[in-house]
Amino acid sequence: MTDLPKQIEIHEEGPREGFQIEAGPISTADKVRFCEALAETGLHDVQCVSFVDARRVPGMADAVEVAQTIRQRPDVQYTGIALNLRGYERAVQTPLHITGGIQMSTSNTFSIHNTNKNNEETLVEQRRQLDFFKARGIPVESAIVMTAFGCNFEGEIAPETVRDCVGKLLDMADEYDIVLDRVRIADTVGWASPASVQRVVGTIREKWPDLKLALHLHDTRGTGMANALMGLQMGIASFDSSCAGLGGCPFAGHKGAAGNICTEDLVFMAQEMGIETGIDLDALIECARLAEEIVGHPLPGKVMHGGSLSKYRSGARA
Amino acid sequence: MTDLPKQIEIHEEGPREGFQIEAGPISTADKVRFCEALAETGLHDVQCVSFVDARRVPGMADAVEVAQTIRQRPDVQYTGIALNLRGYERAVQTPLHITGGIQMSTSNTFSIHNTNKNNEETLVEQRRQLDFFKARGIPVESAIVMTAFGCNFEGEIAPETVRDCVGKLLDMADEYDIVLDRVRIADTVGWASPASVQRVVGTIREKWPDLKLALHLHDTRGTGMANALMGLQMGIASFDSSCAGLGGCPFAGHKGAAGNICTEDLVFMAQEMGIETGIDLDALIECARLAEEIVGHPLPGKVMHGGSLSKYRSGARA
Repeated sequence: MTDLPKQIEIHEEGPREGFQIEAGPISTADKVRFCEALAETGLHDVQCVSFVDARRVPGMADAVEVAQTIRQRPDVQYTGIALNLRGYERAVQTPLHITGGIQMSTSNTFSIHNTNKNNEETLVEQRRQLDFFKARGIPVESAIVMTAFGCNFEGEIAPETVRDCVGKLLDMADEYDIVLDRVRIADTVGWASPASVQRVVGTIREKWPDLKLALHLHDTRGTGMANALMGLQMGIASFDSSCAGLGGCPFAGHKGAAGNICTEDLVFMAQEMGIETGIDLDALIECARLAEEIVGHPLPGKVMHGGSLSKYRSGARA
Repeated sequence: MTDLPKQIEIHEEGPREGFQIEAGPISTADKVRFCEALAETGLHDVQCVSFVDARRVPGMADAVEVAQTIRQRPDVQYTGIALNLRGYERAVQTPLHITGGIQMSTSNTFSIHNTNKNNEETLVEQRRQLDFFKARGIPVESAIVMTAFGCNFEGEIAPETVRDCVGKLLDMADEYDIVLDRVRIADTVGWASPASVQRVVGTIREKWPDLKLALHLHDTRGTGMANALMGLQMGIASFDSSCAGLGGCPFAGHKGAAGNICTEDLVFMAQEMGIETGIDLDALIECARLAEEIVGHPLPGKVMHGGSLSKYRSGARA
């Protein structure tokens, strides 16, 4: 495990992932309370909402209100996402830290199902968005390649296809003089295994050895944490994850789509491996329990139910 | 991932783990149906029941009846466990494949809580059992070291302590001219991380490079599959697991104790990594769904809810 990073950064997506998919209704106050609690754990990045059409995602109807109500800590970035210019127009009116992102899917069919645009149309739309970001002075921090490990519509995805998507996104960033902080490789519909993580990350690394990659993993088939371990072993130091395992992708054409890997489980694993996270695990576990209380049903996180080891360690008869 | 095994063997413990811990009642017929279904998946080893005191574990009151009712396939071993001689006396009356096992915990305090015997008394009891196995011609196949990665009572466990326990069990086997098929290293209360799997397995391997090790992992804190991956990377080719993630340890002094890692999730991961399991994943997923139907509440397995990839692969527009 020689390539293990010394520390990792975690992009918390639980509020956005969770409130997007939960049947609800969840009160604005609860959403705010959850985001504020997450920001007290040492997380530096909390994705609070998505500025999407409330007819499509009713749980995000109060996105602007949530964004306006959160009492912000100065050392935390409270973010929100948007899928189109209308969304970004709403987003930039709020006090959230709004950054632009560029994205494409390896799968044309997935793109059509997800956004009503094929891959070519997606690239045209991305350029329109980049023009908008430039005009409005919105920084562009990351690119994401979706369905990087397989697609429910198109099946297997070759690592070279993922690499080519990364290339297209990097080229587009170059055109706009954007230096991306990181490229996120997403297992949008839960196809990844440790073997495919190794193949895909390895194929991208061959071409761009110094590119900072992040993993966005869903735990649809139980391999989420093993995939994260493989990422760590390949030196990946940036992960998207979701407190309590909240969430899931409502547009994946697949009712069993599970949420992101669970933040506190990832933090537990990293800490047990001597990798710094900067996060107070017990405080994060309390957030996960708060999430469960808010949504009113069990959530898939494990360490939130099993408990951390701190009380056993401190109380152990050595 | 050069040390990956070409194939793995899986010891299915779902029926025993599950029926032991579920509040129930679960009908004898359902238990039998589940064991029989598991045996149709390609699994060669199904642990059906535990011959324990029904006052302690009411779900095992019908263990003998379950054992007698199962219609056995010739290519499958239907096993049962016992914790003491009284249990073995009942077990050997049944048509199950009963083997002896020897065991100890790294933690004296855990031993006392688990069996009312400290480690020294446990070794005395093990010898009484070995005398019994010898007298009755019961083969002894495996040894197990419990709480090998940590203990809720005694905290951290040094890898050298685990190694010393393995040594004691190997010595005892030697005394009785027993050649163990494998030594099982158990994360009884869910403390393991990939780092501790690597340390413990590595420490044992240093002393006995050719000893066949098996991992018995619980997914209490979300690292179960990542721990299994580390095991695979270290060449471990034998795993205990539990269909649907059934089960848990009722005597661990810890209400959050989760079941073993989930068999079908492990099979999915192994197959995706090109490791043979000999198991029909889709048939196994059906077993997991049957288990959920039988126990009447959601079970933690993931791929049983997410579904396998076979339909997407076969139907994919390539």
